Amino acid sequence: MFDLTEKIRFAVVGCGRMGTRRIRTIKENKNAELVCICDSIKDIGQALSNQLECEYLADYRKVVTRRDVDCIVVSLPNKFHCETTVSALANHKHVLCEKPLARTPQEATRMVEAATKSSAYLKVGSNLRYFLNVQKARELVDRGAIGNLLFTRGWIGHSGGKQTGTWFLDPDLAGGGTFLDNGSHILDLTRWFLGEVSECIGVVATAYWPIAPLEDIGLGIFRTLEGKLAFVQSSWFEWADYMYMELYGSEGYLRIDNRNPLCQLTLGDREGAKEVFDYSLLASQSYGLELEDFIQAIREGKQPVPSGYDGMRVVQMAFGVYESSKSSRSVGLFEQEGESSSGAMRGLR
Amino acid sequence: MFDLTEKIRFAVVGCGRMGTRRIRTIKENKNAELVCICDSIKDIGQALSNQLECEYLADYRKVVTRRDVDCIVVSLPNKFHCETTVSALANHKHVLCEKPLARTPQEATRMVEAATKSSAYLKVGSNLRYFLNVQKARELVDRGAIGNLLFTRGWIGHSGGKQTGTWFLDPDLAGGGTFLDNGSHILDLTRWFLGEVSECIGVVATAYWPIAPLEDIGLGIFRTLEGKLAFVQSSWFEWADYMYMELYGSEGYLRIDNRNPLCQLTLGDREGAKEVFDYSLLASQSYGLELEDFIQAIREGKQPVPSGYDGMRVVQMAFGVYESSKSSRSVGLFEQEGESSSGAMRGLR
Amino acid sequence: MFDLTEKIRFAVVGCGRMGTRRIRTIKENKNAELVCICDSIKDIGQALSNQLECEYLADYRKVVTRRDVDCIVVSLPNKFHCETTVSALANHKHVLCEKPLARTPQEATRMVEAATKSSAYLKVGSNLRYFLNVQKARELVDRGAIGNLLFTRGWIGHSGGKQTGTWFLDPDLAGGGTFLDNGSHILDLTRWFLGEVSECIGVVATAYWPIAPLEDIGLGIFRTLEGKLAFVQSSWFEWADYMYMELYGSEGYLRIDNRNPLCQLTLGDREGAKEVFDYSLLASQSYGLELEDFIQAIREGKQPVPSGYDGMRVVQMAFGVYESSKSSRSVGLFEQEGESSSGAMRGLR
Amino acid sequence: MFDLTEKIRFAVVGCGRMGTRRIRTIKENKNAELVCICDSIKDIGQALSNQLECEYLADYRKVVTRRDVDCIVVSLPNKFHCETTVSALANHKHVLCEKPLARTPQEATRMVEAATKSSAYLKVGSNLRYFLNVQKARELVDRGAIGNLLFTRGWIGHSGGKQTGTWFLDPDLAGGGTFLDNGSHILDLTRWFLGEVSECIGVVATAYWPIAPLEDIGLGIFRTLEGKLAFVQSSWFEWADYMYMELYGSEGYLRIDNRNPLCQLTLGDREGAKEVFDYSLLASQSYGLELEDFIQAIREGKQPVPSGYDGMRVVQMAFGVYESSKSSRSVGLFEQEGESSSGAMRGLR
Repeated sequence: MFDLTEKIRFAVVGCGRMGTRRIRTIKENKNAELVCICDSIKDIGQALSNQLECEYLADYRKVVTRRDVDCIVVSLPNKFHCETTVSALANHKHVLCEKPLARTPQEATRMVEAATKSSAYLKVGSNLRYFLNVQKARELVDRGAIGNLLFTRGWIGHSGGKQTGTWFLDPDLAGGGTFLDNGSHILDLTRWFLGEVSECIGVVATAYWPIAPLEDIGLGIFRTLEGKLAFVQSSWFEWADYMYMELYGSEGYLRIDNRNPLCQLTLGDREGAKEVFDYSLLASQSYGLELEDFIQAIREGKQPVPSGYDGMRVVQMAFGVYESSKSSRSVGLFEQEGESSSGAMRGLR
Repeated sequence: MFDLTEKIRFAVVGCGRMGTRRIRTIKENKNAELVCICDSIKDIGQALSNQLECEYLADYRKVVTRRDVDCIVVSLPNKFHCETTVSALANHKHVLCEKPLARTPQEATRMVEAATKSSAYLKVGSNLRYFLNVQKARELVDRGAIGNLLFTRGWIGHSGGKQTGTWFLDPDLAGGGTFLDNGSHILDLTRWFLGEVSECIGVVATAYWPIAPLEDIGLGIFRTLEGKLAFVQSSWFEWADYMYMELYGSEGYLRIDNRNPLCQLTLGDREGAKEVFDYSLLASQSYGLELEDFIQAIREGKQPVPSGYDGMRVVQMAFGVYESSKSSRSVGLFEQEGESSSGAMRGLR
Repeated sequence: MFDLTEKIRFAVVGCGRMGTRRIRTIKENKNAELVCICDSIKDIGQALSNQLECEYLADYRKVVTRRDVDCIVVSLPNKFHCETTVSALANHKHVLCEKPLARTPQEATRMVEAATKSSAYLKVGSNLRYFLNVQKARELVDRGAIGNLLFTRGWIGHSGGKQTGTWFLDPDLAGGGTFLDNGSHILDLTRWFLGEVSECIGVVATAYWPIAPLEDIGLGIFRTLEGKLAFVQSSWFEWADYMYMELYGSEGYLRIDNRNPLCQLTLGDREGAKEVFDYSLLASQSYGLELEDFIQAIREGKQPVPSGYDGMRVVQMAFGVYESSKSSRSVGLFEQEGESSSGAMRGLR
Repeated sequence: MFDLTEKIRFAVVGCGRMGTRRIRTIKENKNAELVCICDSIKDIGQALSNQLECEYLADYRKVVTRRDVDCIVVSLPNKFHCETTVSALANHKHVLCEKPLARTPQEATRMVEAATKSSAYLKVGSNLRYFLNVQKARELVDRGAIGNLLFTRGWIGHSGGKQTGTWFLDPDLAGGGTFLDNGSHILDLTRWFLGEVSECIGVVATAYWPIAPLEDIGLGIFRTLEGKLAFVQSSWFEWADYMYMELYGSEGYLRIDNRNPLCQLTLGDREGAKEVFDYSLLASQSYGLELEDFIQAIREGKQPVPSGYDGMRVVQMAFGVYESSKSSRSVGLFEQEGESSSGAMRGLR
């Protein structure tokens, strides 16, 4: 465990939109120190390192072996998550890897295996868990405010277009479209609230943007090991972005509403809405809370949550829907890796 | 065609909750006349007929043959929709039959065939089409306010419980649970807005109320002939009843919100919400508008909409989800009756 | 004090809209018994008493002397509040008198004096204090949720018209227009939350309905003994009825919103809205809570709140604005009865 | 009149928060050219002029005489509005002077007189008129959507504190507190919508912030020449900033809601809310629209609106409330300058 007076030393690999956001958050955290940054584009990396007064390295392999780095944030395009993370973990560096954890379930599995062998921890990015209304929902669910959870439905998305010309639209770099990209968040929240999933059916399609073979809409229906159902949807023509999710329990419901410009949580009982928690005017604190959570876990020698395993499950959930969309059948999500569902997803009728 | 000065003469068969609502609406319509009512429970029927100053008959077979009746409203439990409607149509009486049109696709088909052979029309109950915000949505879609429709998602339900002890929970009388009962409305709106459906996948389950084999939750994903996707869900633990539906188009979206106590329609463009039409404080006029629509169609000698065929398609959609839930496969919805989907519901990936 | 197993025995004098509401509430309260009702219109009173299975008396003087009556609800037009209440108190009957307590400050003073001499209590109707969101506001203010109160603003009203042909539009029977009638509620809440008032300025006018000399709009600015300011407004063309009031404190604010169909309370801190308590879907319980509060006070031998004195102050506040509107000067509200303000309402500049 | 191909040449005097905002708006307008800026603090002015690539002058007297300048924006503390504006107008430069037009009615009158003698125009800043929801309200009122206007109520404010250490809290520089500062906006809108005012009563106080003799809250009741009433309030502890205003007409009402994060307009009829126009997600365009309106008026040789006279009336309205707060009497607003109201503000009772 760490001496609590020492700062956790960070390196950030990948200085795009997410990377710079992580960098800013590290600089603002009094328990964290930014040691170096890494980006394959030298001009960007160099300029940024000057500004940040930290070291710049072009090659991530030089980062993962540094003695003065404890943690590595992997903010690269999805394609590079696996190699970088595995390498960092092999060098016993803690890793915070952006979501989705990987381009494929196979890559995700390799990363989780690397974490198992490492003395360091792997945490997957899951910013929505740290939204103030999501945190409040978690607290209310935990104290039984809506009884036993029965069902969730949620969607996420944005108006697309802004990815034009980015790696998000390159199938090799991204590994999937909106359902893997944005959907990951709702998939993660679904599993976090409802429990482990066992199978799914779903459909993905390219309905609006000319980005095939990537999908711009995806819909999945999931069943948990306990038989609970969930609906997850994601799209790149969700004009009223960003996120909306409802949790139904035996005694009431919760409505998480992050449709621009809202950040609210509504608590209802069996008669309807009763209380609204409004965070719309507060500055988002999610990145700060996420980093702090990582740092605390490291200091206490505990596995950070969501873990690499959680991230892997999310990738498997997304690929379950991809497979279901191709096969027109339900897909098992709790078998040996790669094995297809036999019992399938059967209704109770 | 009718002489526009003559009233349309109605008989109502079934004097339960829906029947009495139809009776009240007929009494309020200046173009309609209530000739007689029919209910198998004599005490109820007799008392009501005294109050309404109309005739009472215990046997529907005596109703369908009356010369002084033009239209018959079938407000019976689902089990009796088929026999009564077929008999009325055979006697060339126009029929307004409550939704769902029938307990099974087979019964629904018989009813549509009977309508084909009759000189009279068959209209299926579809009260939600007459909600003021739904009517406004239809108008806005028709004038292109949100461009080309791409996708819809909608749900409906209530908090259940109120059906305890009613025929709604008797599988033989009802034919299905919440997805057939409430779901019919969203299935109808989905097809009305998006166009003809070609296949579906879905799951139904009995998650909360002890009412198996009837489901208290159902989820379906539909694809139209044009490849558009839709999500439809229904439950009997939708505490924040009643209905919510969103339509996404290439240029914006519409949000139909009938969650108690609201009746609103939000129009958004690609940047977000722009205008809200609020009908929350207006008394519901949907039953009156529905009846008037029926009467006008009859007077003009036109097929009322939604027709028996539309009602049959809705039953097929619900049963498509039931079948998919059992088989864990997608189900074709545009083949010869009874034939299973071969090409299935394939994603675009 | 009362034996807690005995019911409190009520008589209701005046069986109009409010009287019948009070009657219903008494019948629903298990600690109350309705002994008799009284109304000057025999047909109405007789029919109602048959239905209620209680006695009917045409003359209130026979009611106030009955041995089997503990409490009298005075639900008569304002003109008769004074005489009936004074007579009932003289006979040591507890009185719940509708608001406004009287037509004039002089009458109100007589009623309070009668209460002082009686062994029985006088409570004035103040239904809004029992609204669920108002009760919650009181609780939050009391626990310091918004710090020290600084200022309130509130308005009330409805769309008028419904009083056409009623005593509300007869100056002799009513004593005042909307500001005395509806305004009483906000005046009472203002004084309840902010504390005793010392002076006011204001204006009343007849702006829309042809009901002069009665006003259909009134606006008043009040100052409390502690120097706090309040704005109160009432109108009969408040189309978006019914009530809205905001409380500003040193640490935040409360927004009481009873605009149809809402019943909400918003709690904000110094950065904006934080929490909304939503009672919109709950049936109003205010009349039941008001009666129960009265009964509990009687049983415990305590002065019910709001008292006759509170009701008198509200009438004085309304007449302060009437006087200010005539004199174009501020009016003192904390002097000997009838004496005009000398020090007047001076700003701090 | 101007050659429409020529740009209007601007100088901005005063480079504080408002001045820099005006500068930015001028730079963005294709019909405007920024010639020079002026600020008494040389460091700020010099740095800014370098950045803007325009000339910098320390002394406004050198600005007003420049041949290459058509319009001068006066964004100085209130104390300097009069002298600068009068000087600019004397040199036949058009002037856009920030609100409030002046520290006192006397100064405002001098400015209006200067405009009368000048060949150039005087426009007073009135940013709220250019809010999208206010513009829509104006349009709806003009087309009779709510019938004849009867009454308005509105308030404005913010949470104060941010003025600490600024000229806003210096009585000599500012001339008044929140009611002159923020209140100006609502006073202007009130007069714009309701028509010319004739008298007022009101109170101002220093209730929360230690800023006496400046007020942090002000309340005024106004009567128009046509007898319509209005309520205007402003405070520096309006935690839920920023602005809220309602217009009541004979056929309905409008609700202008700019409480953070909203920018909405609700249109109601006599039954309640019917339509909401939502501009919350649009970037504010008010400064751009205000400048463009000024430029168009100049090009067309028309008096810009609101004019210097309008600005003067607003100052008189604010000072009417200041005077009423001191005298505890109503104050006439439509007499010879300086003469006190005799007939005063009498209610209709």
